[in-house]
Amino acid sequence: MTSETSSQDIVLTPVGIIRNSITKPSFSPKGAADIEERKRQVRQRYRTVKQTISELIIHPKYEELLDGIEAFSHILVLYWPHLLSEGERELQKVHPMGRKDIPEQGIFATRSPARPNPVLVTTVRLLERSGNVLRVRGLEALNESPILDLKPVTREHESTEKPRFPDWIRQIRDDLE
Amino acid sequence: MTSETSSQDIVLTPVGIIRNSITKPSFSPKGAADIEERKRQVRQRYRTVKQTISELIIHPKYEELLDGIEAFSHILVLYWPHLLSEGERELQKVHPMGRKDIPEQGIFATRSPARPNPVLVTTVRLLERSGNVLRVRGLEALNESPILDLKPVTREHESTEKPRFPDWIRQIRDDLE
Repeated sequence: MTSETSSQDIVLTPVGIIRNSITKPSFSPKGAADIEERKRQVRQRYRTVKQTISELIIHPKYEELLDGIEAFSHILVLYWPHLLSEGERELQKVHPMGRKDIPEQGIFATRSPARPNPVLVTTVRLLERSGNVLRVRGLEALNESPILDLKPVTREHESTEKPRFPDWIRQIRDDLE
Repeated sequence: MTSETSSQDIVLTPVGIIRNSITKPSFSPKGAADIEERKRQVRQRYRTVKQTISELIIHPKYEELLDGIEAFSHILVLYWPHLLSEGERELQKVHPMGRKDIPEQGIFATRSPARPNPVLVTTVRLLERSGNVLRVRGLEALNESPILDLKPVTREHESTEKPRFPDWIRQIRDDLE
């Protein structure tokens, strides 16, 4: 299958694939009908993801690019949510985490997977490298998601200053405990 | 201009463009001849970037997606290094920051812009939003780089545990002061 692209378009080729036990999308950008039920779903998914071990199977031709990555405890995984529909890439606003009790936010103000260019970025704990396979913990990606890039975490903080968030972030975080 | 892509390929469309005063690439993956000269270049670029204010001009059709982003102090900018050559995407190892005194590392163990899928990710301070334009500080991107995505920083730390790095990271950091 081929398709045409314009000169402005940017073309990426997956460098590997994610293998784990997470097979069902949890977060519908539309949100669940019942708020308490939704909070329960979010909490459950959060706990599952925290424990899940994923394997990042890197294409053998890129194996050498991993040399030295073992020295880092944490890496960024850039991956593609392959089950997201084209329509979901056109959403403008969502209730964060599908929670209708939180006002809608613009997509760029959320970490929703539904976005114009859904390149998802997660920081994970790197447990082990074995040849072209990395074992990591804490990756919220569905099984078989294509991997686009891996980068080391090179600073104690993502930002050097203390970040400021809107209240809805704290609300979601508090409800996870 | 059009080109053909295979079914495995992923196509992104820029959502905006970066405007700033950084016009020259600083880091050659090949490295400079003289180590002390290279350290000086890296230090100078680091200081410049820390101070540089960039404007992120988002395409008007995506303006609404920014709603709510003002409430965050820091955001991740995903952008494309448009001056990188196709050949540079095929590098397997580099001296980090082009410093020949540091042993070569696999590309995935570095933050080098030269990588198979050069989607660059930087955390920046969000200073102001005005309609479809964001002003940010600390973005190491060249003027006119296409923007692929914006995401809020939603946690104090990129990782919840204290990360571990190889010694060469500390070496680069120490030489910045």
